[in-house]
Amino acid sequence: MTAVQDTPVLDVPSGAPAAVATPLPGDPRLARLSLNQATVKYWSLAEAVQGCLRAGLPAIGLWREPVAEAGLAASAKLVRESGLRVSSYCRGGFLTGADRAGALDENRRAIDEAAELGAPCLVMVAGGLPEGDRDLPGARARVVDAIGELAPYAAERGVRLGLEPLHPIFCADRAVLSTLGQALDIAERFEPEAVGVVVDAYHVWWDPQVYDQIARAGAGGRIVSYQACDWVLPLPEDALLGRGMVGDGHADVGGLRRAVDAAGYTGDIEVEIFNGDIWAADGDEVIATLARRHVQYVV
Amino acid sequence: MTAVQDTPVLDVPSGAPAAVATPLPGDPRLARLSLNQATVKYWSLAEAVQGCLRAGLPAIGLWREPVAEAGLAASAKLVRESGLRVSSYCRGGFLTGADRAGALDENRRAIDEAAELGAPCLVMVAGGLPEGDRDLPGARARVVDAIGELAPYAAERGVRLGLEPLHPIFCADRAVLSTLGQALDIAERFEPEAVGVVVDAYHVWWDPQVYDQIARAGAGGRIVSYQACDWVLPLPEDALLGRGMVGDGHADVGGLRRAVDAAGYTGDIEVEIFNGDIWAADGDEVIATLARRHVQYVV
Repeated sequence: MTAVQDTPVLDVPSGAPAAVATPLPGDPRLARLSLNQATVKYWSLAEAVQGCLRAGLPAIGLWREPVAEAGLAASAKLVRESGLRVSSYCRGGFLTGADRAGALDENRRAIDEAAELGAPCLVMVAGGLPEGDRDLPGARARVVDAIGELAPYAAERGVRLGLEPLHPIFCADRAVLSTLGQALDIAERFEPEAVGVVVDAYHVWWDPQVYDQIARAGAGGRIVSYQACDWVLPLPEDALLGRGMVGDGHADVGGLRRAVDAAGYTGDIEVEIFNGDIWAADGDEVIATLARRHVQYVV
Repeated sequence: MTAVQDTPVLDVPSGAPAAVATPLPGDPRLARLSLNQATVKYWSLAEAVQGCLRAGLPAIGLWREPVAEAGLAASAKLVRESGLRVSSYCRGGFLTGADRAGALDENRRAIDEAAELGAPCLVMVAGGLPEGDRDLPGARARVVDAIGELAPYAAERGVRLGLEPLHPIFCADRAVLSTLGQALDIAERFEPEAVGVVVDAYHVWWDPQVYDQIARAGAGGRIVSYQACDWVLPLPEDALLGRGMVGDGHADVGGLRRAVDAAGYTGDIEVEIFNGDIWAADGDEVIATLARRHVQYVV
């Protein structure tokens, strides 16, 4: 494989470290790099697996929708035979709505799938405020209650629930879980083998308490995933897609990686980017770019 | 004055309390309601003052730009003779850039103006990350340092610095001060007469610690202003303008008002909304609407 230079859409920002050659398969700096499927949204699971293998990435983060498309058993077989580690399974959660029983059923299905896929954790996005509801403490209490229902079920199947605090921009419509401290307050009600936290740089970089809370999470053995993604401005029309390739924005993704490592995390570093331009780019180019950025900014 | 019904652009959302008549001048429910000038961006200071008087609002929050346009001495005279209280002066801050001396000079000028206008506090917006800088702890340390320089100068002139945490959506480009707890950690280094905090519902509603931190702020006599504004979705293209009339969004503006009151705050409740549709509407209609919403959701 020859070194691929940055394409314009994924250009190195000015002031960044000098461009580097794309690391080749076998490069030890790739040893913890995982491709989250959401970063190559338009690839099937088979294509994403092949892309990881071509680029020498040792792990992949899976999503329910493309797994369902390929079939659960076929997906499990495909990933197992590829030799890739499964770094996480996305996602469960959405626990704040009126249909408590339905949400719990859906999450039990996701836990079962995670177990069959060999995923160490199910990433949980809490859910937002129901329409017209301003009772944020009430919604947060429903999340705690639901996690209490799901934790034993997950633990029995060897799957950890990974509570993911989302940036407060999503508090109303997507996740009433907004900080790492808040996620840990919930997780610590349960055994570390049952419930942990996901540290996504994009979501937590701004938090004045983030380094203290990462240390707390590490001390308790609670970090189930570290995700690398940058906060870029201006925000796009759909705020959900305002995530950037590491190095394009303002988050100290490398500093946060060093903090989770100092706290004892040794797992994969998963790159999850929701971004229309990146989705439109060639998947191999995207993986090459994120591998370079990983070397430049994160390792 | 007759009761003005909601115009379509400022309509009452479904599920809201029944529409109410616009409260008339002298209505005790208006006793703490203040119009922040930014809500009627296209009115001059004289127009804003007249609008408050017509609607029976007893207070106004001033901004530097329209005050400069009218002239400082003339503005001070106009407001003094109107009998309106000045609830705050916006704004100082932007303390994270390379030009420390220039920023301090600009803030000393703003403090002098606040004193001449009889404003009890100068609202401070910290400033964001300099271009290409990912050192958030460093930027935050520069804010602490600058507040240390400005606090004695402000206290000598009877002006309190009001540290305003901004929603984390603005952390990169506008304010590295993101939570009430963080603002209090800084404010508490100084006398309460010198440095306090601004509680803006729009900026803090999502914070899992907000009620605890409001109690802490009140116990220390640190709340210099409460601002009412709602978090509405979807966000507009310019996120700065994504603020809504109270009742149109997801923030529990009334619950937060009760919390600041329970913490001992007795000052004005200032309505500050950056929103293109509201700016385009008739100023008197805007004031009538915010007075109705105040009665419906806040008092």
